[in-house]
Amino acid sequence: MYIDRPASYTDYYELTMAQGYYLSGMHERRASFDYFFRKNPFDGGYVIFAGLKELIETINSMSFSPEEIDYLVNEGFDKEFINYLEEFEFTGNIWSVKEGEIVFPNEPIVTVEGNLLETQLIETLLLNVLNFQSLIATKACRIKFAAGDNSTILDFGLRRAQGLAGIHATRAAMIGGFDGTSNVYSAQRFKVQAGGTMAHSWVQSFNDELTAFRTYAEHYPKNTILLVDTYDTLGSGVPNAIKVGKELREEGYELQGIRLDSGDLAYFSKQARTMLDDAGFPDVKIAASNQLDERVIASLRTQNAPIDVFGVGTRLVTGDNSPALDGVYKLSSIGGDPTLKISENIEKITLPGHKKIYRYLNPDGSFYGDALLLDSETILERMHHPTFPAQKSNLNGRNYEELLFQVIKDGKLHVDLPSVKEIAEYKKERFSKLNPEFKRFDNPHIYKVGISTRLMETRDNLLNLLKP
Amino acid sequence: MYIDRPASYTDYYELTMAQGYYLSGMHERRASFDYFFRKNPFDGGYVIFAGLKELIETINSMSFSPEEIDYLVNEGFDKEFINYLEEFEFTGNIWSVKEGEIVFPNEPIVTVEGNLLETQLIETLLLNVLNFQSLIATKACRIKFAAGDNSTILDFGLRRAQGLAGIHATRAAMIGGFDGTSNVYSAQRFKVQAGGTMAHSWVQSFNDELTAFRTYAEHYPKNTILLVDTYDTLGSGVPNAIKVGKELREEGYELQGIRLDSGDLAYFSKQARTMLDDAGFPDVKIAASNQLDERVIASLRTQNAPIDVFGVGTRLVTGDNSPALDGVYKLSSIGGDPTLKISENIEKITLPGHKKIYRYLNPDGSFYGDALLLDSETILERMHHPTFPAQKSNLNGRNYEELLFQVIKDGKLHVDLPSVKEIAEYKKERFSKLNPEFKRFDNPHIYKVGISTRLMETRDNLLNLLKP
Repeated sequence: MYIDRPASYTDYYELTMAQGYYLSGMHERRASFDYFFRKNPFDGGYVIFAGLKELIETINSMSFSPEEIDYLVNEGFDKEFINYLEEFEFTGNIWSVKEGEIVFPNEPIVTVEGNLLETQLIETLLLNVLNFQSLIATKACRIKFAAGDNSTILDFGLRRAQGLAGIHATRAAMIGGFDGTSNVYSAQRFKVQAGGTMAHSWVQSFNDELTAFRTYAEHYPKNTILLVDTYDTLGSGVPNAIKVGKELREEGYELQGIRLDSGDLAYFSKQARTMLDDAGFPDVKIAASNQLDERVIASLRTQNAPIDVFGVGTRLVTGDNSPALDGVYKLSSIGGDPTLKISENIEKITLPGHKKIYRYLNPDGSFYGDALLLDSETILERMHHPTFPAQKSNLNGRNYEELLFQVIKDGKLHVDLPSVKEIAEYKKERFSKLNPEFKRFDNPHIYKVGISTRLMETRDNLLNLLKP
Repeated sequence: MYIDRPASYTDYYELTMAQGYYLSGMHERRASFDYFFRKNPFDGGYVIFAGLKELIETINSMSFSPEEIDYLVNEGFDKEFINYLEEFEFTGNIWSVKEGEIVFPNEPIVTVEGNLLETQLIETLLLNVLNFQSLIATKACRIKFAAGDNSTILDFGLRRAQGLAGIHATRAAMIGGFDGTSNVYSAQRFKVQAGGTMAHSWVQSFNDELTAFRTYAEHYPKNTILLVDTYDTLGSGVPNAIKVGKELREEGYELQGIRLDSGDLAYFSKQARTMLDDAGFPDVKIAASNQLDERVIASLRTQNAPIDVFGVGTRLVTGDNSPALDGVYKLSSIGGDPTLKISENIEKITLPGHKKIYRYLNPDGSFYGDALLLDSETILERMHHPTFPAQKSNLNGRNYEELLFQVIKDGKLHVDLPSVKEIAEYKKERFSKLNPEFKRFDNPHIYKVGISTRLMETRDNLLNLLKP
């Protein structure tokens, strides 16, 4: 379960609106909401969708506990409304793209359909779960992309995570492409690999560095990775590691690695590599940490820094300079009729009605672009740019995949939800179909997301009606 | 409790080190660690310390659950070590500044003393709790400072919080100076005020805006705040709000406010204020939201935007462009002897030994500067700049306060820890003693934090010894 009291893990206005709908006799009206975001984080070209499993499991078992009911009584909520909430369970339908999917701005990644009260009530929970995990899965994917498939990348972020965000940052990092984590709690919970060896305090706790290294190797002969920068990286750290590596070899073991955690990582990794190779340790890995992110790693790659393992903390688990995905949850139909929200900003005008997403493919199977269409449509010949409709793309003859699938039907779980490892595999496969121009860090190409002619007309007719 | 399994809410290397200490017979050696940060977040002049109560309560009741023990067995940890952990409880001592205190870089805000194993094991938990809550309390304080004491500021951040970080973001925001929150979960848990009225979806769920407003006012006549920007802020939103305000008045109620959530908030608030005043509603408050932070609010203040209530979300709860406080936890003594960590960066060399903090005051009671001294010292005549010792401050004749107090003694809670409301009061009082030059957003004055002559000599002697 995502949180112990999910029904109150919400904004207060969800409750005042719910009560208003209930007391007005409107709560049973059918409604649809779409979850989408408007802007790729990190000035990037895509988002990795994550968080679905936990969201769905939580909605599926959501109810108001006695403590939550007491709170509402004390807050002066209406007695009949509270009786209604005591029996509350989610009875609607949810469609979603698969967890681990590559998604883009303005796509209805998740659609929630049900009665007005229940669809409104889950808004905050949905946004809280999906915005964060998608953000971090995306950051993780960028870091893996920079490091390359031959490297190992590890999540070291728990100490700098935003409090309990550390739990799901690790989950999302693994979906995005990380190989392991230092986070023991999340490793247990999500059945992924945890690992780690020593901090500077280990080295300081002994009279000298060599004794600290030796003692570690004695207890962990098969898995010794030595932190070499406590006193003097090249002057004592690496030479002492080599000394211990030789002692281990005499016992029939091999030193696994050294770790650099400060100083110029390009310079130190090259020097350390030469020293290790010269001493007969070409297979000892070099791990590096200290304020890494995708750009620092890309720069280290350009400099041919011989680093095999990257430990990434703060800038992974917080999203660094893009610490939130701007996902929103907007009403798209009410009482069976499509609706939209007007805004002073053109880009913020929403798309009405229950929609689906077709992903069109290039002949080689890579992604060409996505079309948003009304649920009742089946075949598209073209799609339009959402805010500049004269700009069209011809879709004739292209293969497509439908991205949304039903996860909850009439309040019941409709599919088996995959494990974190399975989601990570799916993400990897999907990411291989995204062409490189969308993956680069500077000015990535903008992926086409268009709308069908009928969806465009539905929107424009509504706009004329609401603001003549 | 902060988390259900606190013992495994940790980095894996804390466990490998703990086992190494245990198997080497070193685990009972006495050790001290200091928690401190190196840089004020947000390019600011101070930090508000937060998170202490939850940290202390969690450490105080920490043990390894059967599931955690099973995990360690499966991971291949030593049987005797696991037996030891089954009996684990924290038996050491913790000193801390008060929660809500104003603190500065390089001060040992928390000192943990005990056996090497237990003091090492709590590192990750301590950093995870304190770094985040202190970050957000600081951000909240800055926002309150910009908005001014006569405004109301509300936390709207749950939907964009970093997953479960939303829980403690609200707690920290209240400590930093916020007046209320939309977050129902945290309001219940921390006994603070939650509130909220309507989203755009409420307005869209009715055939027209006026009916939406009327229906809300009917159900909440004493607490009607109308969201006026769903279709056309000045063309329909404000006029409809005025219409409903008149109808409420006929029933003996007063409209409480309107809320702006898009567009130019300075322009719209001025126009709306004039319209409301002209219609006889000078007491209707104007609330504003939409990507606010301390700089946007300061700018609105400069433009004399008549906004009474600010709802702040994303940029409060994530810390925006400074999403992590860089707090660290460093070994300062081992086996009774002071120790330090050397670094390639001078600023990263740590301060050895068990220390205390004296806060020196100006004659008017405002804060002059803080001195770090060894626990055995009592009177200081001067303090030195930590990295440029020739720079001195004379302390003769100044009053001072001691900032660190013992919170855990021999593993037992030593004091009553205050509630969130009490902490917020304490913060407010302390913040009033910080002079304005430390509070400004651009190039704040740097608060003096010096070290005693004896502490300096202890450090320098150790440096000579370790790196002759």
